[in-house]
Amino acid sequence: MRQAITELAIATPGQGLHEITDPVERWVADSAIETGLLTLFVRHTSASLLIQENAAPAARRDVERYFAKIAPESAGYEHDDEGPDDMPAHLRAALTATSLSIPVAGGRTVLGTWQGIYLFEHRRVGHRRRVAAHLIGG
Amino acid sequence: MRQAITELAIATPGQGLHEITDPVERWVADSAIETGLLTLFVRHTSASLLIQENAAPAARRDVERYFAKIAPESAGYEHDDEGPDDMPAHLRAALTATSLSIPVAGGRTVLGTWQGIYLFEHRRVGHRRRVAAHLIGG
Amino acid sequence: MRQAITELAIATPGQGLHEITDPVERWVADSAIETGLLTLFVRHTSASLLIQENAAPAARRDVERYFAKIAPESAGYEHDDEGPDDMPAHLRAALTATSLSIPVAGGRTVLGTWQGIYLFEHRRVGHRRRVAAHLIGG
Repeated sequence: MRQAITELAIATPGQGLHEITDPVERWVADSAIETGLLTLFVRHTSASLLIQENAAPAARRDVERYFAKIAPESAGYEHDDEGPDDMPAHLRAALTATSLSIPVAGGRTVLGTWQGIYLFEHRRVGHRRRVAAHLIGG
Repeated sequence: MRQAITELAIATPGQGLHEITDPVERWVADSAIETGLLTLFVRHTSASLLIQENAAPAARRDVERYFAKIAPESAGYEHDDEGPDDMPAHLRAALTATSLSIPVAGGRTVLGTWQGIYLFEHRRVGHRRRVAAHLIGG
Repeated sequence: MRQAITELAIATPGQGLHEITDPVERWVADSAIETGLLTLFVRHTSASLLIQENAAPAARRDVERYFAKIAPESAGYEHDDEGPDDMPAHLRAALTATSLSIPVAGGRTVLGTWQGIYLFEHRRVGHRRRVAAHLIGG
């Protein structure tokens, strides 16, 4: 049994779902761990992780519109130090995932056919996001 | 230290919370790992995982009604390739969990007395769902 | 490779976000595992876990008000055995996290600068909450 740990740097172009399945799978393959457990952890409170439909861009746009509606910019938040998209970003992060754990088999994650891993950027402006990745197995 | 990995096939009868605590605990017991970490991962984007109250069926009905209300079928989604219950399914999955990790002690999960593990089926029609399970420990 | 497991007992003063970063980091440090994976699991269905902004108390108050609004006490739930704050507690727990996994490097979690770990108490009255903690690594 052994482990690998790294940090993936992801430059987001702005608000929305940005697929990171490829760099994640590449790192898993490079680790040469055949069977194990992958954990991703986003080191921010205004971005989050989401497993979503990887085939239909319309589904991703619906997801983005949905979170914009249930945690809107115009709700009179007390905290707005960094602008109107600051507090909604924290709320959308709270409603989705900060960490995700995915079993690994045959040297790759067991993601289903229609699943992709997405970094959900909640700020309007693109950011350089850091996602910690840990893999344990053999 | 060693690990076990499997896939649980769960036939859901239709929309709602379906308890899977028993097959999960059975697999943990069969693995003969006394202390460790269990991870469950649902390989779909229209079903999810939820730890909920295991004693009161009324609480589960309230949970189902709540998610039907906050991510309703009638909200004019762009993506509706598979019918009106398609997009709400993705949203309800996004709001709940795709992966769950539960420590194991004494050969069983440390679930609290009132906690059950549920597969949350978001499509109207029952499906055969695949839940990957990984256990590491000793 | 080795592992450590414990249960943290957290007395909450009442509804809201209660930071538990310090006792968690202390336990990680005491374990003397340098690199690995930490998992936290809350053993209740009316409290949950949340990674949030650790610098701005106003952001935490906004988070608390937001969840009070989207899963309110006055929504005519079927399940109210333990009072009007019972069912909303289960819903707020369902919308946030029951388990969190955080990589460990250099003997501490890789939490970002502005991230804190919070136990989210959803009942009005303070409770003694049990959070299972598992750490594996070397």
